[in-house]
Amino acid sequence: MVENRAPGWSEMLKAIFPHSGKARVLGLTGPPGAGKSTLVDQLARFYRKDDRKVGIVAVDPTSPYTGGAILGDRIRMQEHFSDPGIYIRSMATRGSLGGLARTTADVTTVLDASGRDLIMIETVGVGQDEVDIVRLADVTILILVPGMGDDVQTIKAGIMEIADIFVINKSDRDGAEHVEREIRSLQSLAMRHDGWTPPIVKTVASQGVGIKELASAVSDYEAYLQKENLALPKSVENWQERLVEMLRDAMLEKARTQLGDGNLARLAAEVAEHKRDPYTLVEEIAANAGKS
Amino acid sequence: MVENRAPGWSEMLKAIFPHSGKARVLGLTGPPGAGKSTLVDQLARFYRKDDRKVGIVAVDPTSPYTGGAILGDRIRMQEHFSDPGIYIRSMATRGSLGGLARTTADVTTVLDASGRDLIMIETVGVGQDEVDIVRLADVTILILVPGMGDDVQTIKAGIMEIADIFVINKSDRDGAEHVEREIRSLQSLAMRHDGWTPPIVKTVASQGVGIKELASAVSDYEAYLQKENLALPKSVENWQERLVEMLRDAMLEKARTQLGDGNLARLAAEVAEHKRDPYTLVEEIAANAGKS
Repeated sequence: MVENRAPGWSEMLKAIFPHSGKARVLGLTGPPGAGKSTLVDQLARFYRKDDRKVGIVAVDPTSPYTGGAILGDRIRMQEHFSDPGIYIRSMATRGSLGGLARTTADVTTVLDASGRDLIMIETVGVGQDEVDIVRLADVTILILVPGMGDDVQTIKAGIMEIADIFVINKSDRDGAEHVEREIRSLQSLAMRHDGWTPPIVKTVASQGVGIKELASAVSDYEAYLQKENLALPKSVENWQERLVEMLRDAMLEKARTQLGDGNLARLAAEVAEHKRDPYTLVEEIAANAGKS
Repeated sequence: MVENRAPGWSEMLKAIFPHSGKARVLGLTGPPGAGKSTLVDQLARFYRKDDRKVGIVAVDPTSPYTGGAILGDRIRMQEHFSDPGIYIRSMATRGSLGGLARTTADVTTVLDASGRDLIMIETVGVGQDEVDIVRLADVTILILVPGMGDDVQTIKAGIMEIADIFVINKSDRDGAEHVEREIRSLQSLAMRHDGWTPPIVKTVASQGVGIKELASAVSDYEAYLQKENLALPKSVENWQERLVEMLRDAMLEKARTQLGDGNLARLAAEVAEHKRDPYTLVEEIAANAGKS
């Protein structure tokens, strides 16, 4: 209901919000082929040993036209189906311009309110979209692998500062030390404002190697935030961004309602034929919205 | 000025818009390591032989905190520096939630108005962000490579329908036929509403192989759009999306102005402490915006 913005989604969220806020939220991202799904599965298994209820939100870079989710996740889902302590939700992009980070956050709120102790948001990619999705988590984990080719520098620069923990997965492969050195050298350039130095954890997720160490790194960071009184400020900062995003959508909705879809198509045609300048047009619409 | 939203950017765009609309715009994207930069360089060289003025907008998945651009592009830029017929602009993400697609479009409008005959928008990645950036081009080119690992299926599903032309770069490597078969099999599942079947062009950009064939594929698609009277409808559709995006920003600005930054921080703190439900809050702000 929330994911598809079905009627009543907003009332639903208002009702459950007071019950949310108890879950810890991990955000995991990395380039395609880094083994994220396997790592998330292993982490879920690990946390289940302590009988903690786990929720997984897998955000897939899926077709903006068909809105379908990735088959692989559905298959993976089956594997955990017998354990009610693990709930997995696959989300597609649904073709909305922007908005995916917001929907992911709302779906996470639902899982949180439902009583999950730990929620993992997993997404594929290292672009702005993925940054927006995972930065709203309490702890952000960036998963890299040895031998990522020429663009590894690009990837790490793009998402470097939001990673609270680095994972080098498939670390039994050649080049793991090289990736580690590169991370360290980039870290020396960028000082985090919270004073935390993100640790680098080496894993071989397919064999369960390093999972315990990764869970310890997560606990260490959470303990650091508590000790330095940084947990609430981080949450306030995240909410400030979420509120702006929500406000943007709400205001657009207001303007669209006033304008009407038919008018939008007509105006777009005038702009496409260069009969009208879009910059002045948008200013005029915004100025009039809400006046009547 | 336009990229950084420096004072006067909006007036500038209003003034130059009537002079834009003549350039052809190609959008090129693909996963990291696909060799996009080399391919774009080769295409630029090719078009320069006909003495066409080329503009390149390279959109980098750069740090949301530092806003810096990727060093590699700066270096690449130097190479063409002596040819005034090629103008390269590297763009960083600047940390804005969303918005990158819009800024890219605005920068493209500037290059267009400045008299560039052909503009190439190059971006790294296969997420929603990259889809939003390249789908606003006249012709969208997706660059894949052999041996992309397990996630190749994911990547292609995510961006499949927006590609007007597929390129298999580094096609002298093992697995080129395999990638081609996968594209063909995905194509058989999704019918395009414009009736065009995207061709697959094999290139080895580093050796200049297949560049002429790629340029021919671009011309073929443009000829098809003209023949079927689809060029204007496509442009109207693109502008409809751009207008919505612009309206979203303008309306947000309006709401923020009314609210004030200090208030936003205070309200975010109340939400973070779960004293206030964000969904009701945003509805209230939107309802009040523009009333006074």
